[in-house]
Amino acid sequence: MTRSWVPGADGSGFGADHLPYGVFSVGGGAPRAGVRIGAYTLDLAAALGDDVFAAPTLNPFLARGRPAWAAARSRVIELLTDDARRAEAEPHLVPLDRVRTRLPIEVADYADFYCSLEHATNLGRILRPAEEPLKPNWRHLPVGYHGRAGTVVVSGTPVARPSGQRLPAPPARASSTGPTFAKRLPPGGPGPAPVYGPSVRLDIEAELGFVVGAPSRIGEPVAPGAFPDHVFGVALVNDWSARDIQAWEYVPLGPFGGKSFATSMAAWITPLDALEPARVPGPAQEPPPLPYLARAADWGLDLTLEVRLNGEVIARPPYDRMYWTPDQMLAQLTVTGASLRPGDLYASGTVSGPGPSECGSLIELTRNGAAPLRLTDGTTRAFLDDGDEITVTAATPGGLTLAEVRGMISP
Amino acid sequence: MTRSWVPGADGSGFGADHLPYGVFSVGGGAPRAGVRIGAYTLDLAAALGDDVFAAPTLNPFLARGRPAWAAARSRVIELLTDDARRAEAEPHLVPLDRVRTRLPIEVADYADFYCSLEHATNLGRILRPAEEPLKPNWRHLPVGYHGRAGTVVVSGTPVARPSGQRLPAPPARASSTGPTFAKRLPPGGPGPAPVYGPSVRLDIEAELGFVVGAPSRIGEPVAPGAFPDHVFGVALVNDWSARDIQAWEYVPLGPFGGKSFATSMAAWITPLDALEPARVPGPAQEPPPLPYLARAADWGLDLTLEVRLNGEVIARPPYDRMYWTPDQMLAQLTVTGASLRPGDLYASGTVSGPGPSECGSLIELTRNGAAPLRLTDGTTRAFLDDGDEITVTAATPGGLTLAEVRGMISP
Repeated sequence: MTRSWVPGADGSGFGADHLPYGVFSVGGGAPRAGVRIGAYTLDLAAALGDDVFAAPTLNPFLARGRPAWAAARSRVIELLTDDARRAEAEPHLVPLDRVRTRLPIEVADYADFYCSLEHATNLGRILRPAEEPLKPNWRHLPVGYHGRAGTVVVSGTPVARPSGQRLPAPPARASSTGPTFAKRLPPGGPGPAPVYGPSVRLDIEAELGFVVGAPSRIGEPVAPGAFPDHVFGVALVNDWSARDIQAWEYVPLGPFGGKSFATSMAAWITPLDALEPARVPGPAQEPPPLPYLARAADWGLDLTLEVRLNGEVIARPPYDRMYWTPDQMLAQLTVTGASLRPGDLYASGTVSGPGPSECGSLIELTRNGAAPLRLTDGTTRAFLDDGDEITVTAATPGGLTLAEVRGMISP
Repeated sequence: MTRSWVPGADGSGFGADHLPYGVFSVGGGAPRAGVRIGAYTLDLAAALGDDVFAAPTLNPFLARGRPAWAAARSRVIELLTDDARRAEAEPHLVPLDRVRTRLPIEVADYADFYCSLEHATNLGRILRPAEEPLKPNWRHLPVGYHGRAGTVVVSGTPVARPSGQRLPAPPARASSTGPTFAKRLPPGGPGPAPVYGPSVRLDIEAELGFVVGAPSRIGEPVAPGAFPDHVFGVALVNDWSARDIQAWEYVPLGPFGGKSFATSMAAWITPLDALEPARVPGPAQEPPPLPYLARAADWGLDLTLEVRLNGEVIARPPYDRMYWTPDQMLAQLTVTGASLRPGDLYASGTVSGPGPSECGSLIELTRNGAAPLRLTDGTTRAFLDDGDEITVTAATPGGLTLAEVRGMISP
């Protein structure tokens, strides 16, 4: 372990071997970039004398590419670990309880994948019970879609329960022949007519997000081997999902308003360099992927997520089992020639393992509401209540902890 | 008709009653905003003395909102129609053949809808022949999804034929029992294994795009009646689609790489004000939409699109029949609380009418390749060949012509 002179940093999960990047402001001051160390953030523009860190987002720094990222990291490590530099650096440390963390990047495009075999299987069983749970394409490519970049919010931002169009009663709770369903049939169309109202099946998706730094050109796919040249780092993501709205709207073009109301991301982005010790081979893939998706290096990540509902741990999803690795997601994202921009964010999809407490969404943990969670305060949850707070964290076996992504549901 | 002193402007489709906005540069000069009049663009920063028009995109101007849009339009109309202002304005007119047009907006989020009843029915029949062509939700809400904002390109940008993963032979041409299909079966999975290669079913989607100016706040839906407060204007869009890649990847999360390689938009955005004479009631809707989608004003648009392949007209899709109107699309986009940003772009989906030559995509015009188009040069087209150029224009009965969206396929 790299030791730091910063009080309390060693062993905090945010030691000198971690050093995630974020954007913060103090009082009414302008947002600027910082690196988190223990319970402090280092003011980078001041400490490194580089105006790129005085910008309100990390995008200009991210755009500089890997050599610049590596150089900045070296300088920060030196400042925070060399006792001889303490006097110089210490004035630029700001206690985290004095800062407001901001969305660290201006999100360019946001894409979301579906990379957990267990999650895809579970969801397929729930949403399409009459069919094979996995679609024929699932083992051939990391399936993904675009989400709404403009509603990515930083950890801690309250999330308003969305209203929208949905079927009148959630399938898990209602009789399919009940009177509500028969009330108003669309002409010639099968099934019940929808209603408008607040989502009654508000859910989470605990995911790992990947932040693109260096851009690519339109028409030029990015191979899996170029993953570390383009991706700066990772941040936990909670892709809030209104299951009732989503289930009604998503055919045939995919999720839209049921997810676009808010996606939370952590305030601190962990550089890939800090995750070196957590790199593991991804799971074996059968059939082997086509050559354009073939892995060139190990980009599985040995991370265990922890999902808390009002402080109580409800799941511990294992990231190392994710079938598709982030280098493969990047290759799929760009295979047809789509370009990358600094600030692009793509996420893994819900992280779910095979165990009953290893799922990263309530729809899986409660078997679509049929087996509500019983909390220690005696209440139960099929989906989220107003006032519920969800916090997702993650840790490596080496003790590095990814910054939390947290959000509370407001009515 | 409002007459202009600009030579050739009256009757050109770009007269003083139109005045669309774009961004242009001359030689190596910086991009800046202009208004098109006839075969010229008016340099707005110079003519109006407002630095908002010296920005490289229209976004800062769009963010100012409708009163500012109306004021700018009045000033431009006065300059270009009042003979007494000619001496003042003329030095700021630049001939279009001297300028390079740029992407007029920095696209924030790009969403695409599916608003033509005929297109949705045609595509459903082609892609899901065993099912009802319209999904049960279609008549209840404008179905949409998010596309890739970073690959929206300006009219005239060449479009590289995308490569990607697809089934080994297009269903329309291959025997389903042919040897290629049996070569490599995924373990336990149904159907043939995919291959990697250039798309062999490259298609167009002729659409109308809506450019958002004034932002909205997260958590606050925008009602149909607020459409003109938020939407600045319209631009033709060609949503290039690799049908073979799309057909394989799109379940269950919707289109992704098969469309994200490029979306072309016109260089000139027609303000809503210019479309006043073209406003018509949208088609009757049965069942009536839920109240949050109820129309508050007429935002159907009497526009006829014209699709040209290498100069030859191949379709004339009628926009006035589009089942869902753009005020309804906006309400659906925001109903769950998704916010709007200046530069958001949302498109109507393919414009198709009931007639055989009224469809805005080749997959419909050629019945999925079964009835190739015969061109006057004697060649046929099921889908696009390398070198093919597609141009989409549109006109109102009053003679206003929307600026073209054009693109040529490069290998």
